[in-house]
Amino acid sequence: MTTAFQTADTEETTTFLNITVYHPEQEKKQVFRAIRFCQREHLRVDELVKFGRNCDICRFYFMDSHVSRIQFALQLFRPFGSSELVFEIMNLSKRVKLIVDHVELAFLNKLIIPQRCLVRFGDYQLLMQKQDGQSEDFFEISFDMSKTSLWQEAVSLSVPETGVTCSLSPEEMDEDE
Amino acid sequence: MTTAFQTADTEETTTFLNITVYHPEQEKKQVFRAIRFCQREHLRVDELVKFGRNCDICRFYFMDSHVSRIQFALQLFRPFGSSELVFEIMNLSKRVKLIVDHVELAFLNKLIIPQRCLVRFGDYQLLMQKQDGQSEDFFEISFDMSKTSLWQEAVSLSVPETGVTCSLSPEEMDEDE
Repeated sequence: MTTAFQTADTEETTTFLNITVYHPEQEKKQVFRAIRFCQREHLRVDELVKFGRNCDICRFYFMDSHVSRIQFALQLFRPFGSSELVFEIMNLSKRVKLIVDHVELAFLNKLIIPQRCLVRFGDYQLLMQKQDGQSEDFFEISFDMSKTSLWQEAVSLSVPETGVTCSLSPEEMDEDE
Repeated sequence: MTTAFQTADTEETTTFLNITVYHPEQEKKQVFRAIRFCQREHLRVDELVKFGRNCDICRFYFMDSHVSRIQFALQLFRPFGSSELVFEIMNLSKRVKLIVDHVELAFLNKLIIPQRCLVRFGDYQLLMQKQDGQSEDFFEISFDMSKTSLWQEAVSLSVPETGVTCSLSPEEMDEDE
């Protein structure tokens, strides 16, 4: 599942997304124990990359009953007239908002993510940083883990603290979702 | 694969896409023989619906070596502030342009399709007609077949004949794609 697809031409660079993850209870709950850190995973450009709780459906999954079956998905595409590929993120959770920097995404809303952005849902924080590449066949994702809140870091970079909600209460849990 | 997912509330309408297909050599080549006509197929809203030659990857496939492994994909999403779901179409073929009405999509380009549009690649013509629905969980696709060119019909509906290319030469075939 990790390195099944390799570019034929190893000289060609791939579009690359580094995701630094943070959860305040990682120490206790080990929600990221299914994530392979610090290694690049090759994916085909035509893959809709799903993140969530369900390990049968999601390429990357979180060991946490608070997470939706599918929480969100990433997809590459090429805007008209552009030579670069860009990532779009779609919220696939009915009950939890996905917040990209300051923008709240409801279920099935989507958004092109900037080169660097902070994605949040529930207690999760994911700092996504993109590097452009040439390959039209593959892209790569790697994960790092932070032991400190990334939102604090973002706040220090003049992100306003108001107008953002980020709730995930146990009463809202629904196994069907 | 066809009706595995059913809406719990049968009163709820689903977003529905009817696709009328045409290929000039269907009689001889039976390129549509893997398509189940005149029945609605239920699909989850989070599915990236792929069309192409490869039956292991594509939800709907064409029995034709001229078709790319994955030719194109459809995906539902909800624009910000909208109550309706819309379909986006992405070209996933490197060698064949996908033409939506008058707009040419290169590899990895994508476009929101209007309520009614003619999608073409190579000799294929697909008239897509959407009906809005309420379900947030599922949508439906059905297929009809036309024995006459849909492009001619579109032309009669004042579509200009110039500025559109629609070529698929055997020399361009590439099994890797």
